[in-house]
Amino acid sequence: MTLWHGRFAEQTNSDAFALNASIGFDRRMAEQDVRGSTAWVDALAQAGVLNLQEQTLISGGLQAIFEEFQSQTFTFAPGDEDIHSAVERRLGEIIGPVAGKLHTGRSRNDQVATDFRLWLLDHLPNLANALSDLQSAFIERAENDMDTLMPGYTHLQRAQPILLSHWWLSHFWPLQRDQARLADLTKRTAVMPLGSGALAGVPYPIDRGALADALGFAWPSPNSLDAVSDRDFAVEMLFSAALIGTHLSKLAENMVIFTSAEFGFFDLDDAYSTGSSLMPQKKNPDPFELTRSKAGTLLGTLTGLMATLKGLPSTYDKDLQEDKVPVFNAYDTLMAMLPVLAGALRTLTVKRVRMEAAIDAGMMATDMADYLVGRGIPFREAHALTGQAVRQALEKGKSLDAFSLAEFQAIHPSFDEDVYTVFDAQVSVARRESLGGTAPKAVKVQIQQAKEILQTQQSCRNQVKPYPRIKLLGENYVEHNLPRMRRRI
Amino acid sequence: MTLWHGRFAEQTNSDAFALNASIGFDRRMAEQDVRGSTAWVDALAQAGVLNLQEQTLISGGLQAIFEEFQSQTFTFAPGDEDIHSAVERRLGEIIGPVAGKLHTGRSRNDQVATDFRLWLLDHLPNLANALSDLQSAFIERAENDMDTLMPGYTHLQRAQPILLSHWWLSHFWPLQRDQARLADLTKRTAVMPLGSGALAGVPYPIDRGALADALGFAWPSPNSLDAVSDRDFAVEMLFSAALIGTHLSKLAENMVIFTSAEFGFFDLDDAYSTGSSLMPQKKNPDPFELTRSKAGTLLGTLTGLMATLKGLPSTYDKDLQEDKVPVFNAYDTLMAMLPVLAGALRTLTVKRVRMEAAIDAGMMATDMADYLVGRGIPFREAHALTGQAVRQALEKGKSLDAFSLAEFQAIHPSFDEDVYTVFDAQVSVARRESLGGTAPKAVKVQIQQAKEILQTQQSCRNQVKPYPRIKLLGENYVEHNLPRMRRRI
Amino acid sequence: MTLWHGRFAEQTNSDAFALNASIGFDRRMAEQDVRGSTAWVDALAQAGVLNLQEQTLISGGLQAIFEEFQSQTFTFAPGDEDIHSAVERRLGEIIGPVAGKLHTGRSRNDQVATDFRLWLLDHLPNLANALSDLQSAFIERAENDMDTLMPGYTHLQRAQPILLSHWWLSHFWPLQRDQARLADLTKRTAVMPLGSGALAGVPYPIDRGALADALGFAWPSPNSLDAVSDRDFAVEMLFSAALIGTHLSKLAENMVIFTSAEFGFFDLDDAYSTGSSLMPQKKNPDPFELTRSKAGTLLGTLTGLMATLKGLPSTYDKDLQEDKVPVFNAYDTLMAMLPVLAGALRTLTVKRVRMEAAIDAGMMATDMADYLVGRGIPFREAHALTGQAVRQALEKGKSLDAFSLAEFQAIHPSFDEDVYTVFDAQVSVARRESLGGTAPKAVKVQIQQAKEILQTQQSCRNQVKPYPRIKLLGENYVEHNLPRMRRRI
Amino acid sequence: MTLWHGRFAEQTNSDAFALNASIGFDRRMAEQDVRGSTAWVDALAQAGVLNLQEQTLISGGLQAIFEEFQSQTFTFAPGDEDIHSAVERRLGEIIGPVAGKLHTGRSRNDQVATDFRLWLLDHLPNLANALSDLQSAFIERAENDMDTLMPGYTHLQRAQPILLSHWWLSHFWPLQRDQARLADLTKRTAVMPLGSGALAGVPYPIDRGALADALGFAWPSPNSLDAVSDRDFAVEMLFSAALIGTHLSKLAENMVIFTSAEFGFFDLDDAYSTGSSLMPQKKNPDPFELTRSKAGTLLGTLTGLMATLKGLPSTYDKDLQEDKVPVFNAYDTLMAMLPVLAGALRTLTVKRVRMEAAIDAGMMATDMADYLVGRGIPFREAHALTGQAVRQALEKGKSLDAFSLAEFQAIHPSFDEDVYTVFDAQVSVARRESLGGTAPKAVKVQIQQAKEILQTQQSCRNQVKPYPRIKLLGENYVEHNLPRMRRRI
Repeated sequence: MTLWHGRFAEQTNSDAFALNASIGFDRRMAEQDVRGSTAWVDALAQAGVLNLQEQTLISGGLQAIFEEFQSQTFTFAPGDEDIHSAVERRLGEIIGPVAGKLHTGRSRNDQVATDFRLWLLDHLPNLANALSDLQSAFIERAENDMDTLMPGYTHLQRAQPILLSHWWLSHFWPLQRDQARLADLTKRTAVMPLGSGALAGVPYPIDRGALADALGFAWPSPNSLDAVSDRDFAVEMLFSAALIGTHLSKLAENMVIFTSAEFGFFDLDDAYSTGSSLMPQKKNPDPFELTRSKAGTLLGTLTGLMATLKGLPSTYDKDLQEDKVPVFNAYDTLMAMLPVLAGALRTLTVKRVRMEAAIDAGMMATDMADYLVGRGIPFREAHALTGQAVRQALEKGKSLDAFSLAEFQAIHPSFDEDVYTVFDAQVSVARRESLGGTAPKAVKVQIQQAKEILQTQQSCRNQVKPYPRIKLLGENYVEHNLPRMRRRI
Repeated sequence: MTLWHGRFAEQTNSDAFALNASIGFDRRMAEQDVRGSTAWVDALAQAGVLNLQEQTLISGGLQAIFEEFQSQTFTFAPGDEDIHSAVERRLGEIIGPVAGKLHTGRSRNDQVATDFRLWLLDHLPNLANALSDLQSAFIERAENDMDTLMPGYTHLQRAQPILLSHWWLSHFWPLQRDQARLADLTKRTAVMPLGSGALAGVPYPIDRGALADALGFAWPSPNSLDAVSDRDFAVEMLFSAALIGTHLSKLAENMVIFTSAEFGFFDLDDAYSTGSSLMPQKKNPDPFELTRSKAGTLLGTLTGLMATLKGLPSTYDKDLQEDKVPVFNAYDTLMAMLPVLAGALRTLTVKRVRMEAAIDAGMMATDMADYLVGRGIPFREAHALTGQAVRQALEKGKSLDAFSLAEFQAIHPSFDEDVYTVFDAQVSVARRESLGGTAPKAVKVQIQQAKEILQTQQSCRNQVKPYPRIKLLGENYVEHNLPRMRRRI
Repeated sequence: MTLWHGRFAEQTNSDAFALNASIGFDRRMAEQDVRGSTAWVDALAQAGVLNLQEQTLISGGLQAIFEEFQSQTFTFAPGDEDIHSAVERRLGEIIGPVAGKLHTGRSRNDQVATDFRLWLLDHLPNLANALSDLQSAFIERAENDMDTLMPGYTHLQRAQPILLSHWWLSHFWPLQRDQARLADLTKRTAVMPLGSGALAGVPYPIDRGALADALGFAWPSPNSLDAVSDRDFAVEMLFSAALIGTHLSKLAENMVIFTSAEFGFFDLDDAYSTGSSLMPQKKNPDPFELTRSKAGTLLGTLTGLMATLKGLPSTYDKDLQEDKVPVFNAYDTLMAMLPVLAGALRTLTVKRVRMEAAIDAGMMATDMADYLVGRGIPFREAHALTGQAVRQALEKGKSLDAFSLAEFQAIHPSFDEDVYTVFDAQVSVARRESLGGTAPKAVKVQIQQAKEILQTQQSCRNQVKPYPRIKLLGENYVEHNLPRMRRRI
Repeated sequence: MTLWHGRFAEQTNSDAFALNASIGFDRRMAEQDVRGSTAWVDALAQAGVLNLQEQTLISGGLQAIFEEFQSQTFTFAPGDEDIHSAVERRLGEIIGPVAGKLHTGRSRNDQVATDFRLWLLDHLPNLANALSDLQSAFIERAENDMDTLMPGYTHLQRAQPILLSHWWLSHFWPLQRDQARLADLTKRTAVMPLGSGALAGVPYPIDRGALADALGFAWPSPNSLDAVSDRDFAVEMLFSAALIGTHLSKLAENMVIFTSAEFGFFDLDDAYSTGSSLMPQKKNPDPFELTRSKAGTLLGTLTGLMATLKGLPSTYDKDLQEDKVPVFNAYDTLMAMLPVLAGALRTLTVKRVRMEAAIDAGMMATDMADYLVGRGIPFREAHALTGQAVRQALEKGKSLDAFSLAEFQAIHPSFDEDVYTVFDAQVSVARRESLGGTAPKAVKVQIQQAKEILQTQQSCRNQVKPYPRIKLLGENYVEHNLPRMRRRI
C-alpha cells in the first residue's frame, strides 16, 4: 500500500508502478534514509510534536531497521515504491501505528534530497581517497624515475627532451584540481533540505540549525522551494566525475600509445594486460582503453542529467527522480577505474633505453636557436636559421649534430665549436630550471610540493569525524584543497 | 581460465579483471552468441575445416547450451570474462577438447559485433511494435474525440481553435518518422561482420554470403577492418531512441500542462497517476514527468557513446566494449515507457467543457483579418487593423465579439453585420480544410492515412519470418516505412 | 609569412591555412595578448635577456599596438594566422628586427593559454555583475510583492499556498550558487602558464612569481607540460555557464506557463514581448522562450569541448584551438540574456487577483491533516482520512471548505468547529515560519540575508584593482562568495 | 516596424530586440525565402486570392529582391528582425501596399520551416559531393598503394599484417554509410510545411501538392501542428554531421599517430602541415588534429539542439529559433574540413620501408596457430601452444622466426620444416581472400565495388534537376544510396 492511497479510487497500473518505482536504485540510500529519519524524530520531539515515549519507540524501531540493513536481513515488499516507503512500512510492522507519526511535517521531497546529499557526503571522501592514491602513484613513479629522459611531444611530434618524472607529475596536477573541485562540491552539498516539507516549509517549530548539526550538514537550506528542487550538487558531481574522466583519458591515451611496439616506452605488467582470443602474441592495454572509453560515458551521464533538468518548472517534479542512477554510476565507474590505474602504474616497467633512444638531435633545435640568441641574434631570426638547418638536415639525410662546423657556419657565422654542446639532451633539460620547468632541480621542488599537498589533505581528512563532519570541511578542508602553488623555487 | 592465457606469465589482477569483464551485461546476448556460433560451425564444415562428426558434436553441444539458456539453468563461472568465453568453456565441459575447434578462424572482435547486431535485429521489431501501439492509441483518441474543439497554442499562448483529434494526430507523425528511422537503422544493422577475424579477414574458404543468409543478415561486411570497429548501428540506435524520447517529451510536457488545475483539459485515470506522501489532495502526472525526464537520459546515452568513439584509432579497441550498456538501457527505457503512455492516453478523460471554454474570441483575430482580406484589404493592413481592435479590446476590458458594429466600423468601414460570424470557432476550424489542416474534413483524411500506414507496416512485419528475416526487410520493409504522404485530399 | 616558415619548402595550402587559422576568433584577445607580451618583455629584461634599450623599444612598440587595438585602427594582414602572429608582425613593422627578440623563451603554447586566462579573468566580473543585477531584480520583486499569495506547485499540480516573494527568492539562490562556482572558477583560472615554453619550461632565469604578480595572476603554474594543455578553466566556465542556463530555463519555463491565458499570473510589458506575423491578437513571451532554448545550446558547448578534450595525448595538441569559440559564445549568450531577463522581471505586472483566486481549499489538505495530527492522530492516518475527504469532495463536486461539520465528523469524530480555520491560505502560509519557510516572517529574514550577500559581494568586487586583481580574489573574494547561510531566524 | 506592431502600445526594448532578432543568421536563407514566397504567390493566385495583376506585381518585386541578394546589393534595415520581415519590407518599398498581400494565409511559422528545409535541400548535395571526393581520394590511394604491406593493429598493438590499400578502404565504407544517412535525411527533409499557417492550416483553397511540386518538395506535410514544430530534419542533419565527424576523427587519430617519428608511416606534404613558433624542427599534422577536435564540437551542436527541443510543448515555440546556427555551423565545419583532408591524403608520402619494417614475426602468430590447426590440433590448443612460443620468444629475446625446428618441436611435435613459411607476411595477407579480407584478390574486388558505388551515386545526382529535384530523390536516389554490398567474390 502506497503512502498516498487515501485519495485514489483505483490501484496503480502495474506497468506504471514499475516505471514509477525507484526502489531498484534508491535502496542504496537505505542507511542515509534511516539516519535522516532518526534525526527528524529527535527534531520533532524537541519541537514538542512527539513525546518522549513516541520518540523512544520510533527511534528504537529505526535502529532495528538500520541493523537489518547492515546485516542484510531487511526484506523489501512488492509494494515498496521507494526506500522511504519501505522504511515506513517496516517501521509499522515493528512498532505499530505510532510509526505513522514519523512523517509528520515532512515530505518525500525534502527527505529524498536529504538522503541523496547525505549519501554523497558519505561517499565523496572515498572518491577523494582513491584519487589521492592515484596521485601518490604518480609521485612514487616520479621519485623512482628521476634519472630517465624521454622525448616530450607536442602534436604527438617529438618536441623537446623532458624528464620522465616531470611527465608523471603532469598527471598529478589535473587530479589536484579535481580534488579542489570535489572540495568545492562538498561545500555546496553540505546544505540540508530537511524541514522544507513538500515545498513550503514546515509548520512545526523545528530547529533546522540543530537538525543540520545532528546530521552533519553545514547549513540548512535558505529557501524551501529551491531546497526540494536543487540538484546542482548532483550535476556538479557528474561534472567533476566527467572531468576526472577526461584527465584519466589523457593518461590512458598516452599509455596506449607509449605501450605500442613503435613507441615501446612502457611494458605493462601481465596482471594489468589482456590477450586475444585469436592472436596468441597479443598483449593489450585494456585497462587504459577502458579508462579512455569511460570518459565518454561519464560525459554522457552529465549531459543526460543536465538535459533532464533543462526547462523544468519550479519545485519538485518527478523528473528529478532521474538524478540518482547517473550519480551512482559515475561513482562506481571511477571507483572501479582508479585502483586499477594506480596498480598498473606502480607495476609497469619503464623501457629507459627505448625512451632515451627516441631523443634525436632535432629535438634540440630550440636550444640551437637559443644558442644563436646568446650570440645576439633576435630569436625570430635564430628560429628561421635553425629551421633552414633542419631543412638541410632532412635534405641531406643527416642528423643536425652530424653537421660539420663549416656547415653550421654556412648557415650563420656566429656558430662556433661549442655549438655541439646544445645537442646534449641532459644539458637541454637542465637548463629549464625555472619554476615548473623540466630540469631535475625544478622537478624535485615539484615533487616536494606535491607530497606536501597530499599529506595536508590526508591529515585534514583524518581529522574529520564521521558526524558532524561537515563543519570541519567548511572551515579548513576547503582551504587545504586549494592548490598550494609555489611562487619561487 | 581465459581464452588467451598462453602468452601470459601471471594472472590478471582481480580489480583489473572486474573492470575488464563484460559478462555482467553481455550475457544478455547469450542466445545470439550461440546462434552465431552454430552458423559458424556449419560454415567451417562447409569450408572443410571441420568434418561431419566434429560439426555434429559441436552443434549438439551448442544446442544443449542454448537450451540451458532458455531454461535458465546455465551457470556462469567466476572466470567467465564474457559471454563468448562462458559458452566456449561450457562447450568444453559438455563435449570435451573438440570444443577447442569452434573458434577456428574467428575472433571475439567479429563475434561480438555479430552478436550485438543480431541482438538488435531481434529486438528492434519489439520497439517498432510498441511504437505502433502508441500510434494506434493516438488514432483511437483521434477517432473518439472528433467532436471536441480545443485552443491551439503557439508560444503556449492561445493562438487558433483546433480539433482535439488534429492535436492527437500531431503526435502520431513524429513517431512515424521514428518508425522510418528504425527501418533505416535496420538496413544498416543487417550487415554481417562474422568472417572478419580479429581485423584482417578469415584464412579459410568461408562462404560469407551463405553465412549471412543463414544468420538472417542482408549482406556480409565489405571490409574486415571496418567490420570489427563499426558501431554506427549502435550510435544510430541511440540517436533514434533519443529522438523518440524527444518526441515523447513533447507529449509529456503538454500532458503535464494540460492536466494542471489551471488548464484542466484532461483528467488522468487513477491507475496512471500518483499521490503525495504529505499532501493528501495531490494527484500527479508522474508517468509523463518521467517520460519527459528520460528524454534527457536518452540524450546522455547518445552523447556518451559518441564521445567514446571520438578519436579512436583503427580497428578494434577495447573502448568499443562500452557500446552495449547504453543500447540495452535505451531499449529498456523505451520499452518501459511506451506501454504506460499508451495506457494513460487510452484511459484519460477529456474535459471537453473546459477545453471549449478556453477558446476566446481573440483566437479568431486571424479570421477577422481574413475577413478584411476578403473585402480587398491587403493582409498586412488587415493584420494591423485587427491588432488595433485587440488593443482596444484589452483597454476596454471587453471581448472582441462584444464590440458593436459601430466600434468595428470605427476601425475600418469595411466591417459589416456578418463580421460576428468570424467568432464562431467551429466555422474557423472548418475553413482550414486544406491538406494537413484542422478542419474535420481534412482530419478524417488524415486519420485514414494514418490507419493505412499502420496496417501496411503491421502486415509487412507479420510476413517477416524469424530467420532469414532481413532479406525481406531489405526489399519491402523499408519502402513500407517511407512516409505514405498524400498529395491531395 | 608565418612564424615558422624556416623549415618548410612549400606554402601552406590555402584551404588548410583557412582551416588552421584562428585569427577569426582569437583577435578578441588582442589586448590580453599585448599585455602578456609587455609583461614578458619586462621579465626577459629582468632576467638579463634583453637590455634596457631593447626593453624600451619593444615595450613602446607594444604600447603603440595596444593603442591601435583600442582605437580600432589595427589592420590585420592576410597572412596573420593568429593574434600572436599579427602582433609580432606589426611590432616588426613599427620597431624593426628587434621585434624578433620578443618571442625569446616563449611559445604560442604558453602564450595562448595565458591570453585566454587573462581574457576570462577580465570578463568573469562582467558576468558576475550581470548575475548580481538579475539577483537584485529578484530581491526587488520580493520586496514589492510581499503581500501576494500564490499557489505553490509540485508536479505542476497545485500543492500549497506560498508567498509570491518566496517564489521570487527561490530563483535568487541558484544564481548565488552560480556566483560561488564562478568564484571557484576564478581561483583555478588565476594560474599563469607563461614561462612554460612550448612544453618543457623556459631556459632563462625568469622570475615567474613576479611575472604572475605583474599580470595579476595568483600563482605560476607548477608543471609546464600540464600548463600548456590545461583547459580545465575553459571547461569549468562552460559548465558554470550551462548550469546558469539551466537555472534560467527553470525561471523561463515558469514564466511561459504563468503568462499563459489559463494561468494568467503575470502580464509582460509590451517592451519584453513580441507578436505574430499572422495572428493579430498574439503577445508572446519570446525572451523567456529564448532563454529556455539557450540552456540547451549552452549544454551543447560544454559537451562539445569536453568531447574534444577526451582522449588527447599529453601537452599541446592543435585540438586545443577548439577551446575559444565555445567560451566566447557562452559568455556572449549569457551577457545577452541576463539584462533582458532583469528588465522583463522589473517591468512585468503581477495579476494578484488571478493568483490568489487560484488557491483552492484542496491546497490546505495538508493543513487539515496537520489539524488531525494536533488532535493526536498519527500523520499517516490523518493523511489517509484527509485523502478520503478529498475523494468525497471530488465525488460530491464540492469544495472541502464547503463540507458541513457533520460531513467532517463522519470522516473522523475529532473534527470540530475550528476545522474551517485551516482553509485560510494566509494562516497556512504564516504557519511555515521555520528557517527557509514561506511565512512572511521567514521570507523577510531571507530577503535580508540575500541583500547582505549581494552587498558583500559587490563591495568585495569594488575593492579589486584592475591589476593585480587576483591576489585579492585568492584571499577574500572566494570566502565572500560562500553562501552566507543563516542557522537560526 | 515589425510585422506585428498593431497590438502593441510600446516599442520592444532594444536588448530584447537584439536577443530576439534572427536576422544575423537567417539572412543566409535569403534566396530560399524569396523562392518560397514566389511559389506562395502563385499558389494564392491559383486559389483565387490574388488576381493576375497582383500576382505579376508581387512576383516581379520578389524577382528584383532575388537579384539584389544575388548581386549583394540588398540593404538590411535596423528594424529587420528576420529575413522574412526584411523581404516583406523591401517588397513594400519596391511595389507599394500590395506587398501587404504576400503574407495572406501564411505565417512565419510555416515560412521559416519551409525556408530552412529548402536551404538544407540546396546544400546537402554539396556535402554529399565533398564526401564523395574524399571517398575518391581513398580509392585513389588504395589503387596506388596496392603493393604496400603494413602492420594492422588492434588495441594499437601490432596484430596482423594487412594491405595498406585495405586500410585506406576501411575509411571509405563509414563515409558510404554516411552517404546513405544523408540520403535518408533528404527523404525526411523533402516534406513541405508551407500551407500550415501558424499552426492550424490555411483557410484558402491552396493546392499544397502542386505547391510542393513547384518548390521541389516530395510531399506536403500531413499535419499542420506537427509541420510548424518538426525539427527532426535539423537534428538528423546534426547527427549525420556528428557521425561523419566521428568517422573523420578515426582517420585523424591514425594520421596523427602514423606521422609520429616513432611510427613514421606517412610524411605529410609541407602544404598540409604547420610549424612551431618556438621549435624550429617541428612539422605538425594540424589538419588532422583539427579534424579530430571538430568531432567534439559537432557532437556538441547535436547535443545542444536536442536538449533545446526536449520538453517543448506543442506547435511553434520561439525556442525553435535556436535550430539554425548549429546546422549552419555543422555544414560549414564539414565543408571546411573535407577538402583539406582529401588534399592531405592525395599529397602525402607513404614511407613503405618503415611500414613493412614494422611487421615482425610475432604478427604471424595466428598463422602459426592455424598451421597447427592444419595438423589437426584444435584451435584453442594451438592458440595456447603458440602463446607459449611467444612467451619463450620474449624470455629468450629472440624472434619467433629465429626459433630452431627443435625449439618448435619442443613445443609440439607437429611442427615441421615448413613452419617457417608462416612468417612470410605476403603469404599471411594472401591467405585472407574471403570477401572483405585483406588479400590483394579481395581488396581488388573491394576497390571495384567502391568505384561502382561512387559512380552510380554521381550519375544519379547528375540526373537531378534543380527543381523539382526531390521527386527523383524519392524514387531512385535513395535506392542508389543503399550500400551495394557483394555477396560473393
